[in-house]
Amino acid sequence: AICAAITDFFQHNAEKPLRGRKMLVTAGPTHEPIDPVRYIANRSSGKQGYAIAAALADLGAEVVLVSGPTRLDSPRGVTRQNVESANDMLAACEAALPVDAAIFAAAVADWRVASEADQKIKKKEGRLPSLSLAENPDILATVSALTQGRPALVVGFAAETEAIIENGKAKLARKGCDWIVANDVGTGTGTFGGDENHVFLLTREGVEDWPKQSKDAVARDLAARITTFFQGVDV
Amino acid sequence: AICAAITDFFQHNAEKPLRGRKMLVTAGPTHEPIDPVRYIANRSSGKQGYAIAAALADLGAEVVLVSGPTRLDSPRGVTRQNVESANDMLAACEAALPVDAAIFAAAVADWRVASEADQKIKKKEGRLPSLSLAENPDILATVSALTQGRPALVVGFAAETEAIIENGKAKLARKGCDWIVANDVGTGTGTFGGDENHVFLLTREGVEDWPKQSKDAVARDLAARITTFFQGVDV
Repeated sequence: AICAAITDFFQHNAEKPLRGRKMLVTAGPTHEPIDPVRYIANRSSGKQGYAIAAALADLGAEVVLVSGPTRLDSPRGVTRQNVESANDMLAACEAALPVDAAIFAAAVADWRVASEADQKIKKKEGRLPSLSLAENPDILATVSALTQGRPALVVGFAAETEAIIENGKAKLARKGCDWIVANDVGTGTGTFGGDENHVFLLTREGVEDWPKQSKDAVARDLAARITTFFQGVDV
Repeated sequence: AICAAITDFFQHNAEKPLRGRKMLVTAGPTHEPIDPVRYIANRSSGKQGYAIAAALADLGAEVVLVSGPTRLDSPRGVTRQNVESANDMLAACEAALPVDAAIFAAAVADWRVASEADQKIKKKEGRLPSLSLAENPDILATVSALTQGRPALVVGFAAETEAIIENGKAKLARKGCDWIVANDVGTGTGTFGGDENHVFLLTREGVEDWPKQSKDAVARDLAARITTFFQGVDV
Protein backbone atom coordinates (compact mmCIF):
# COMPACT_ATOMS: atom_id res chain seq x y z
CA ALA A 1 0.00 0.00 0.00
CA ILE A 2 2.83 2.38 0.86
CA CYS A 3 4.61 1.42 -2.39
CA ALA A 4 1.42 2.02 -4.33
CA ALA A 5 0.96 5.41 -2.70
CA ILE A 6 4.52 6.41 -3.55
CA THR A 7 4.12 5.19 -7.15
CA ASP A 8 0.85 7.08 -7.40
CA PHE A 9 2.50 10.21 -6.07
CA PHE A 10 5.28 10.16 -8.67
CA GLN A 11 3.01 9.12 -11.52
CA HIS A 12 0.59 11.80 -10.47
CA ASN A 13 3.22 14.51 -10.74
CA ALA A 14 4.73 13.08 -13.92
CA GLU A 15 1.30 13.11 -15.52
CA LYS A 16 0.41 16.59 -14.28
CA PRO A 17 3.17 18.67 -15.89
CA LEU A 18 0.93 21.76 -15.98
CA ARG A 19 0.28 21.72 -12.22
CA GLY A 20 0.56 25.26 -10.89
CA ARG A 21 -0.20 26.83 -14.29
CA LYS A 22 -3.38 28.81 -14.79
CA MET A 23 -4.90 28.79 -18.27
CA LEU A 24 -7.77 30.62 -19.92
CA VAL A 25 -9.73 28.92 -22.71
CA THR A 26 -12.61 30.45 -24.65
CA ALA A 27 -15.08 28.30 -26.59
CA GLY A 28 -18.32 28.33 -28.53
CA PRO A 29 -20.06 31.05 -30.48
CA THR A 30 -21.14 34.47 -29.29
CA HIS A 31 -24.71 35.67 -29.66
CA GLU A 32 -25.13 39.32 -30.62
CA PRO A 33 -28.63 40.63 -29.85
CA ILE A 34 -30.69 42.40 -32.53
CA ASP A 35 -33.74 42.88 -30.29
CA PRO A 36 -35.24 40.95 -27.34
CA VAL A 37 -35.94 37.88 -29.51
CA ARG A 38 -33.47 37.91 -32.41
CA TYR A 39 -29.70 37.61 -32.51
CA ILE A 40 -26.78 36.95 -34.82
CA ALA A 41 -25.03 33.64 -34.15
CA ASN A 42 -22.50 31.32 -35.74
CA ARG A 43 -22.20 27.59 -36.17
CA SER A 44 -19.51 26.96 -33.55
CA SER A 45 -20.48 24.04 -31.30
CA GLY A 46 -17.76 24.72 -28.72
CA LYS A 47 -16.48 21.13 -28.97
CA GLN A 48 -12.87 22.01 -29.87
CA GLY A 49 -12.51 24.60 -27.11
CA TYR A 50 -14.13 22.33 -24.49
CA ALA A 51 -11.79 19.50 -25.52
CA ILE A 52 -8.78 21.81 -25.08
CA ALA A 53 -9.99 22.92 -21.65
CA ALA A 54 -10.42 19.25 -20.67
CA ALA A 55 -6.98 18.26 -22.01
CA LEU A 56 -5.23 21.09 -20.14
CA ALA A 57 -7.07 20.22 -16.92
CA ASP A 58 -6.05 16.56 -17.36
CA LEU A 59 -2.43 17.73 -17.43
CA GLY A 60 -2.90 19.53 -14.11
CA ALA A 61 -3.58 23.11 -15.23
CA GLU A 62 -6.09 25.30 -13.41
CA VAL A 63 -8.47 26.11 -16.27
CA VAL A 64 -11.04 28.89 -16.62
CA LEU A 65 -13.36 28.17 -19.54
CA VAL A 66 -15.20 31.25 -20.82
CA SER A 67 -17.99 29.81 -22.92
CA GLY A 68 -20.56 31.22 -25.32
CA PRO A 69 -23.93 29.44 -25.58
CA THR A 70 -23.34 25.72 -26.24
CA ARG A 71 -25.08 22.42 -25.60
CA LEU A 72 -22.03 20.94 -23.88
CA ASP A 73 -21.48 19.80 -20.33
CA SER A 74 -18.61 21.40 -18.43
CA PRO A 75 -15.43 19.32 -18.56
CA ARG A 76 -14.36 17.80 -15.23
CA GLY A 77 -12.10 20.02 -13.14
CA VAL A 78 -12.70 23.17 -15.18
CA THR A 79 -14.21 26.45 -13.94
CA ARG A 80 -16.80 27.58 -16.46
CA GLN A 81 -18.06 31.11 -17.00
CA ASN A 82 -21.03 31.48 -19.36
CA VAL A 83 -21.34 34.54 -21.59
CA GLU A 84 -23.44 35.56 -24.60
CA SER A 85 -21.92 38.49 -26.49
CA ALA A 86 -18.36 39.36 -27.51
CA ASN A 87 -18.37 42.29 -25.08
CA ASP A 88 -19.34 39.95 -22.23
CA MET A 89 -16.65 37.47 -23.29
CA LEU A 90 -13.93 40.13 -23.23
CA ALA A 91 -15.00 41.22 -19.75
CA ALA A 92 -14.94 37.61 -18.48
CA CYS A 93 -11.48 37.05 -20.02
CA GLU A 94 -10.09 40.21 -18.44
CA ALA A 95 -11.51 39.10 -15.09
CA ALA A 96 -9.70 35.74 -15.44
CA LEU A 97 -6.27 37.33 -15.92
CA PRO A 98 -3.43 36.89 -15.04
CA VAL A 99 -2.92 33.47 -16.62
CA ASP A 100 0.11 31.63 -17.97
CA ALA A 101 -1.55 30.80 -21.28
CA ALA A 102 -4.70 31.93 -23.07
CA ILE A 103 -6.24 29.81 -25.81
CA PHE A 104 -8.92 31.69 -27.71
CA ALA A 105 -10.90 28.94 -29.44
CA ALA A 106 -14.27 30.74 -29.38
CA ALA A 107 -15.82 31.89 -32.63
CA VAL A 108 -16.33 35.48 -31.54
CA ALA A 109 -18.62 37.58 -33.71
CA ASP A 110 -16.65 40.29 -35.52
CA TRP A 111 -19.67 42.58 -35.42
CA ARG A 112 -22.58 43.33 -33.20
CA VAL A 113 -25.75 45.23 -34.05
CA ALA A 114 -25.01 48.90 -33.46
CA SER A 115 -28.20 49.71 -31.56
CA GLU A 116 -29.96 46.77 -29.94
CA ALA A 117 -33.73 47.39 -29.98
CA ASP A 118 -35.57 47.35 -26.61
CA GLN A 119 -38.72 45.91 -28.19
CA LYS A 120 -39.24 43.35 -30.91
CA ILE A 121 -38.76 45.01 -34.31
CA LYS A 122 -42.13 44.82 -36.07
CA LYS A 123 -42.57 43.83 -39.68
CA LYS A 124 -43.99 46.73 -41.65
CA GLU A 125 -45.44 46.43 -45.10
CA GLY A 126 -42.92 47.40 -47.75
CA ARG A 127 -40.25 48.52 -45.28
CA LEU A 128 -37.15 46.52 -44.46
CA PRO A 129 -35.19 47.31 -41.34
CA SER A 130 -31.49 47.78 -41.96
CA LEU A 131 -29.06 46.27 -39.53
CA SER A 132 -26.24 48.71 -38.94
CA LEU A 133 -23.27 46.91 -37.46
CA ALA A 134 -20.53 47.96 -35.08
CA GLU A 135 -17.15 46.32 -34.69
CA ASN A 136 -16.79 44.07 -31.66
CA PRO A 137 -13.74 44.21 -29.39
CA ASP A 138 -10.92 42.00 -30.67
CA ILE A 139 -10.27 39.78 -27.65
CA LEU A 140 -7.24 38.02 -29.15
CA ALA A 141 -5.53 41.26 -30.22
CA THR A 142 -6.42 43.00 -26.94
CA VAL A 143 -4.88 40.30 -24.76
CA SER A 144 -1.89 39.83 -27.11
CA ALA A 145 -1.11 43.56 -26.89
CA LEU A 146 -1.13 43.78 -23.09
CA THR A 147 2.11 45.34 -21.84
CA GLN A 148 1.43 44.34 -18.24
CA GLY A 149 0.21 40.85 -17.45
CA ARG A 150 0.30 39.46 -20.97
CA PRO A 151 0.08 35.64 -20.81
CA ALA A 152 3.40 33.98 -21.70
CA LEU A 153 1.58 32.10 -24.46
CA VAL A 154 -1.36 33.46 -26.44
CA VAL A 155 -2.97 31.09 -28.94
CA GLY A 156 -5.59 32.23 -31.44
CA PHE A 157 -7.87 30.26 -33.71
CA ALA A 158 -8.63 31.07 -37.31
CA ALA A 159 -11.81 29.65 -38.80
CA GLU A 160 -11.38 29.91 -42.54
CA THR A 161 -13.32 28.74 -45.56
CA GLU A 162 -10.59 29.54 -48.14
CA ALA A 163 -6.83 30.25 -48.32
CA ILE A 164 -6.48 28.78 -44.83
CA ILE A 165 -2.70 29.02 -44.36
CA GLU A 166 -2.41 32.41 -46.01
CA ASN A 167 -5.26 33.86 -43.94
CA GLY A 168 -3.87 32.19 -40.82
CA LYS A 169 -0.38 33.68 -41.33
CA ALA A 170 -1.85 37.12 -41.88
CA LYS A 171 -3.86 36.73 -38.66
CA LEU A 172 -0.77 35.66 -36.68
CA ALA A 173 1.10 38.77 -37.85
CA ARG A 174 -1.84 41.13 -37.35
CA LYS A 175 -3.00 39.99 -33.92
CA GLY A 176 0.34 39.78 -32.14
CA CYS A 177 -0.39 36.36 -30.70
CA ASP A 178 2.17 33.53 -30.49
CA TRP A 179 0.42 30.67 -32.25
CA ILE A 180 -2.54 30.35 -34.55
CA VAL A 181 -4.52 27.14 -34.94
CA ALA A 182 -6.04 27.52 -38.41
CA ASN A 183 -8.87 25.25 -39.42
CA ASP A 184 -11.10 24.75 -42.38
CA VAL A 185 -14.74 25.31 -41.47
CA GLY A 186 -16.10 25.43 -45.00
CA THR A 187 -19.40 23.85 -45.94
CA GLY A 188 -18.92 20.13 -46.35
CA THR A 189 -15.88 19.86 -44.05
CA GLY A 190 -18.17 19.12 -41.10
CA THR A 191 -15.81 21.00 -38.76
CA PHE A 192 -18.47 23.25 -37.21
CA GLY A 193 -20.58 20.96 -35.08
CA GLY A 194 -18.63 17.85 -36.07
CA ASP A 195 -16.24 15.70 -34.07
CA GLU A 196 -13.18 15.90 -36.34
CA ASN A 197 -10.88 18.74 -37.24
CA HIS A 198 -8.11 19.33 -39.76
CA VAL A 199 -5.85 22.04 -38.37
CA PHE A 200 -2.61 23.80 -39.20
CA LEU A 201 -0.46 25.03 -36.31
CA LEU A 202 1.16 28.33 -37.28
CA THR A 203 3.98 29.58 -35.09
CA ARG A 204 6.79 32.11 -35.62
CA GLU A 205 8.87 29.12 -36.76
CA GLY A 206 6.59 27.88 -39.50
CA VAL A 207 3.49 25.91 -40.45
CA GLU A 208 2.62 22.38 -39.35
CA ASP A 209 -0.10 20.47 -41.20
CA TRP A 210 -1.67 18.18 -38.59
CA PRO A 211 -3.56 15.12 -39.75
CA LYS A 212 -7.35 15.22 -39.75
CA GLN A 213 -8.27 13.69 -36.40
CA SER A 214 -10.83 13.90 -33.64
CA LYS A 215 -11.20 17.22 -31.81
CA ASP A 216 -10.16 15.37 -28.65
CA ALA A 217 -6.92 14.28 -30.36
CA VAL A 218 -6.27 17.83 -31.62
CA ALA A 219 -6.82 19.04 -28.05
CA ARG A 220 -4.40 16.48 -26.54
CA ASP A 221 -1.72 17.31 -29.14
CA LEU A 222 -2.14 21.02 -28.53
CA ALA A 223 -2.01 20.52 -24.75
CA ALA A 224 1.21 18.50 -25.21
CA ARG A 225 2.71 21.34 -27.26
CA ILE A 226 1.72 23.84 -24.58
CA THR A 227 3.37 21.58 -21.98
CA THR A 228 6.60 21.54 -24.02
CA PHE A 229 6.45 25.33 -24.31
CA PHE A 230 6.22 25.74 -20.53
CA GLN A 231 9.03 23.27 -19.83
CA GLY A 232 11.39 26.02 -20.95
CA VAL A 233 9.67 28.85 -19.05
CA ASP A 234 10.06 29.82 -15.39
CA VAL A 235 6.83 30.40 -13.49
CA ALA B 1 -59.67 -10.51 -20.38
CA ILE B 2 -62.39 -10.09 -23.02
CA CYS B 3 -64.11 -7.49 -20.88
CA ALA B 4 -60.81 -5.66 -20.45
CA ALA B 5 -60.23 -5.72 -24.20
CA ILE B 6 -63.68 -4.33 -24.87
CA THR B 7 -63.25 -1.64 -22.24
CA ASP B 8 -59.86 -0.77 -23.73
CA PHE B 9 -61.40 -0.54 -27.19
CA PHE B 10 -64.07 1.94 -26.13
CA GLN B 11 -61.75 3.94 -23.89
CA HIS B 12 -59.23 4.00 -26.69
CA ASN B 13 -61.71 5.53 -29.12
CA ALA B 14 -63.14 7.86 -26.50
CA GLU B 15 -59.64 9.15 -25.76
CA LYS B 16 -58.61 9.46 -29.41
CA PRO B 17 -61.18 11.98 -30.66
CA LEU B 18 -58.75 13.25 -33.34
CA ARG B 19 -58.25 9.81 -34.90
CA GLY B 20 -58.38 10.17 -38.70
CA ARG B 21 -57.43 13.86 -38.59
CA LYS B 22 -54.12 15.00 -40.04
CA MET B 23 -52.48 18.03 -38.46
CA LEU B 24 -49.46 20.15 -39.28
CA VAL B 25 -47.50 21.81 -36.48
CA THR B 26 -44.46 24.06 -36.91
CA ALA B 27 -42.06 24.72 -34.06
CA GLY B 28 -38.76 26.29 -33.14
CA PRO B 29 -36.80 29.14 -34.65
CA THR B 30 -35.58 29.48 -38.19
CA HIS B 31 -31.93 30.14 -38.98
CA GLU B 32 -31.26 32.53 -41.83
CA PRO B 33 -27.71 32.20 -43.21
CA ILE B 34 -25.45 35.26 -43.55
CA ASP B 35 -22.46 33.28 -44.84
CA PRO B 36 -21.19 29.69 -44.33
CA VAL B 37 -20.57 30.28 -40.60
CA ARG B 38 -22.94 33.05 -39.47
CA TYR B 39 -26.71 33.24 -39.28
CA ILE B 40 -29.58 35.20 -37.81
CA ALA B 41 -31.55 33.25 -35.19
CA ASN B 42 -34.15 33.83 -32.50
CA ARG B 43 -34.66 32.62 -28.96
CA SER B 44 -37.48 30.16 -29.64
CA SER B 45 -36.74 26.81 -27.97
CA GLY B 46 -39.50 24.94 -29.81
CA LYS B 47 -40.98 23.68 -26.51
CA GLN B 48 -44.50 25.08 -27.04
CA GLY B 49 -44.81 23.71 -30.59
CA TYR B 50 -43.42 20.31 -29.61
CA ALA B 51 -45.87 20.15 -26.70
CA ILE B 52 -48.76 20.92 -29.07
CA ALA B 53 -47.62 18.24 -31.53
CA ALA B 54 -47.43 15.75 -28.66
CA ALA B 55 -50.87 16.72 -27.28
CA LEU B 56 -52.52 16.35 -30.72
CA ALA B 57 -50.85 12.96 -31.28
CA ASP B 58 -52.04 11.84 -27.83
CA LEU B 59 -55.59 12.61 -28.96
CA GLY B 60 -55.15 10.40 -32.01
CA ALA B 61 -54.23 12.90 -34.73
CA GLU B 62 -51.65 12.08 -37.40
CA VAL B 63 -49.14 14.87 -36.79
CA VAL B 64 -46.41 16.24 -39.06
CA LEU B 65 -44.03 18.43 -37.06
CA VAL B 66 -41.98 20.79 -39.22
CA SER B 67 -39.20 21.92 -36.89
CA GLY B 68 -36.49 24.53 -37.04
CA PRO B 69 -33.20 23.81 -35.19
CA THR B 70 -33.97 22.83 -31.58
CA ARG B 71 -32.42 20.70 -28.86
CA LEU B 72 -35.61 18.71 -28.37
CA ASP B 73 -36.36 15.04 -28.92
CA SER B 74 -39.21 14.18 -31.28
CA PRO B 75 -42.51 13.58 -29.46
CA ARG B 76 -43.78 10.01 -29.58
CA GLY B 77 -45.97 9.20 -32.57
CA VAL B 78 -45.12 12.38 -34.48
CA THR B 79 -43.49 12.58 -37.93
CA ARG B 80 -40.76 15.20 -37.75
CA GLN B 81 -39.28 17.13 -40.65
CA ASN B 82 -36.22 19.26 -39.85
CA VAL B 83 -35.65 22.57 -41.62
CA GLU B 84 -33.39 25.60 -41.15
CA SER B 85 -34.66 28.65 -43.02
CA ALA B 86 -38.14 30.14 -43.48
CA ASN B 87 -38.04 29.23 -47.17
CA ASP B 88 -37.32 25.60 -46.26
CA MET B 89 -40.09 25.66 -43.67
CA LEU B 90 -42.67 26.90 -46.19
CA ALA B 91 -41.67 24.18 -48.65
CA ALA B 92 -41.98 21.49 -45.96
CA CYS B 93 -45.40 22.82 -44.90
CA GLU B 94 -46.67 22.84 -48.48
CA ALA B 95 -45.43 19.27 -48.89
CA ALA B 96 -47.40 18.25 -45.77
CA LEU B 97 -50.74 19.55 -47.12
CA PRO B 98 -53.60 18.72 -47.21
CA VAL B 99 -54.26 18.69 -43.46
CA ASP B 100 -57.33 19.29 -41.31
CA ALA B 101 -55.59 21.81 -39.07
CA ALA B 102 -52.33 23.72 -39.21
CA ILE B 103 -50.82 25.18 -36.04
CA PHE B 104 -47.96 27.55 -36.81
CA ALA B 105 -46.09 27.80 -33.52
CA ALA B 106 -42.64 28.33 -35.05
CA ALA B 107 -40.91 31.68 -34.62
CA VAL B 108 -40.24 32.22 -38.30
CA ALA B 109 -37.74 34.94 -39.16
CA ASP B 110 -39.48 37.88 -40.86
CA TRP B 111 -36.34 38.58 -42.87
CA ARG B 112 -33.45 36.75 -44.41
CA VAL B 113 -30.15 38.16 -45.62
CA ALA B 114 -30.70 39.24 -49.22
CA SER B 115 -27.55 37.69 -50.63
CA GLU B 116 -26.02 34.87 -48.64
CA ALA B 117 -22.20 34.93 -49.05
CA ASP B 118 -20.50 31.79 -50.41
CA GLN B 119 -17.38 32.39 -48.33
CA LYS B 120 -16.92 33.70 -44.81
CA ILE B 121 -17.17 37.50 -44.84
CA LYS B 122 -13.76 38.81 -43.77
CA LYS B 123 -13.25 41.61 -41.31
CA LYS B 124 -11.59 44.55 -43.02
CA GLU B 125 -10.01 47.45 -41.19
CA GLY B 126 -12.38 50.40 -40.99
CA ARG B 127 -15.10 48.82 -43.14
CA LEU B 128 -18.33 47.38 -41.84
CA PRO B 129 -20.36 45.03 -43.97
CA SER B 130 -23.99 46.01 -44.23
CA LEU B 131 -26.61 43.32 -44.04
CA SER B 132 -29.29 44.02 -46.58
CA LEU B 133 -32.41 42.08 -45.74
CA ALA B 134 -35.17 40.57 -47.83
CA GLU B 135 -38.66 39.70 -46.64
CA ASN B 136 -39.26 36.02 -45.94
CA PRO B 137 -42.38 34.24 -47.16
CA ASP B 138 -45.27 34.58 -44.72
CA ILE B 139 -46.17 30.94 -44.07
CA LEU B 140 -49.24 31.70 -41.94
CA ALA B 141 -50.72 34.16 -44.46
CA THR B 142 -49.85 31.91 -47.41
CA VAL B 143 -51.62 28.87 -45.98
CA SER B 144 -54.54 30.96 -44.64
CA ALA B 145 -55.12 32.40 -48.12
CA LEU B 146 -55.23 29.06 -49.96
CA THR B 147 -58.40 28.81 -52.02
CA GLN B 148 -57.89 25.10 -52.68
CA GLY B 149 -56.92 22.82 -49.83
CA ARG B 150 -56.97 25.40 -47.06
CA PRO B 151 -56.97 23.59 -43.68
CA ALA B 152 -60.35 23.85 -41.92
CA LEU B 153 -58.55 25.43 -38.96
CA VAL B 154 -55.45 27.62 -39.23
CA VAL B 155 -53.87 28.75 -35.95
CA GLY B 156 -51.11 31.33 -35.79
CA PHE B 157 -48.88 32.39 -32.93
CA ALA B 158 -47.94 35.94 -32.08
CA ALA B 159 -44.80 36.46 -30.05
CA GLU B 160 -45.05 39.95 -28.68
CA THR B 161 -43.09 42.07 -26.26
CA GLU B 162 -45.66 44.90 -25.95
CA ALA B 163 -49.38 45.58 -26.63
CA ILE B 164 -49.92 41.82 -26.81
CA ILE B 165 -53.69 41.71 -27.36
CA GLU B 166 -53.72 44.70 -29.71
CA ASN B 167 -50.90 43.30 -31.83
CA GLY B 168 -52.45 39.84 -31.74
CA LYS B 169 -55.85 41.17 -32.95
CA ALA B 170 -54.18 43.05 -35.77
CA LYS B 171 -52.32 39.88 -36.75
CA LEU B 172 -55.54 37.82 -36.75
CA ALA B 173 -57.17 40.32 -39.12
CA ARG B 174 -54.11 40.73 -41.35
CA LYS B 175 -53.17 37.08 -41.78
CA GLY B 176 -56.58 35.60 -42.49
CA CYS B 177 -56.11 32.76 -40.00
CA ASP B 178 -58.81 31.49 -37.65
CA TRP B 179 -57.17 31.74 -34.24
CA ILE B 180 -54.13 33.50 -32.84
CA VAL B 181 -52.34 32.34 -29.72
CA ALA B 182 -50.65 35.53 -28.51
CA ASN B 183 -47.94 35.30 -25.93
CA ASP B 184 -45.63 37.63 -24.12
CA VAL B 185 -42.00 36.80 -24.89
CA GLY B 186 -40.49 39.96 -23.45
CA THR B 187 -37.25 39.92 -21.50
CA GLY B 188 -37.94 38.73 -17.97
CA THR B 189 -41.07 36.72 -18.84
CA GLY B 190 -38.92 33.62 -19.37
CA THR B 191 -41.26 32.45 -22.15
CA PHE B 192 -38.55 31.90 -24.76
CA GLY B 193 -36.65 28.84 -23.57
CA GLY B 194 -38.73 28.51 -20.41
CA ASP B 195 -41.32 25.91 -19.41
CA GLU B 196 -44.26 28.24 -18.73
CA ASN B 197 -46.37 30.40 -20.95
CA HIS B 198 -49.03 33.07 -20.47
CA VAL B 199 -51.18 33.15 -23.59
CA PHE B 200 -54.28 34.85 -24.93
CA LEU B 201 -56.46 32.90 -27.36
CA LEU B 202 -57.86 35.28 -29.98
CA THR B 203 -60.70 34.03 -32.16
CA ARG B 204 -63.30 35.77 -34.29
CA GLU B 205 -65.52 35.59 -31.17
CA GLY B 206 -63.20 37.37 -28.79
CA VAL B 207 -60.20 37.22 -26.50
CA GLU B 208 -59.57 34.66 -23.76
CA ASP B 209 -56.91 35.32 -21.16
CA TRP B 210 -55.56 31.89 -20.17
CA PRO B 211 -53.79 31.51 -16.83
CA LYS B 212 -50.01 31.33 -16.80
CA GLN B 213 -49.31 27.61 -16.87
CA SER B 214 -46.84 25.07 -18.18
CA LYS B 215 -46.34 24.84 -21.93
CA ASP B 216 -47.61 21.25 -21.69
CA ALA B 217 -50.85 22.49 -20.08
CA VAL B 218 -51.24 25.22 -22.73
CA ALA B 219 -50.77 22.49 -25.37
CA ARG B 220 -53.36 20.18 -23.79
CA ASP B 221 -55.89 23.02 -23.49
CA LEU B 222 -55.30 24.06 -27.10
CA ALA B 223 -55.60 20.45 -28.31
CA ALA B 224 -58.90 20.17 -26.39
CA ARG B 225 -60.17 23.33 -28.10
CA ILE B 226 -59.13 21.94 -31.47
CA THR B 227 -61.00 18.72 -30.64
CA THR B 228 -64.15 20.72 -29.82
CA PHE B 229 -63.78 22.61 -33.10
CA PHE B 230 -63.68 19.39 -35.10
CA GLN B 231 -66.62 17.85 -33.25
CA GLY B 232 -68.77 20.15 -35.35
CA VAL B 233 -67.00 19.58 -38.65
CA ASP B 234 -67.45 16.76 -41.17
CA VAL B 235 -64.26 15.16 -42.46
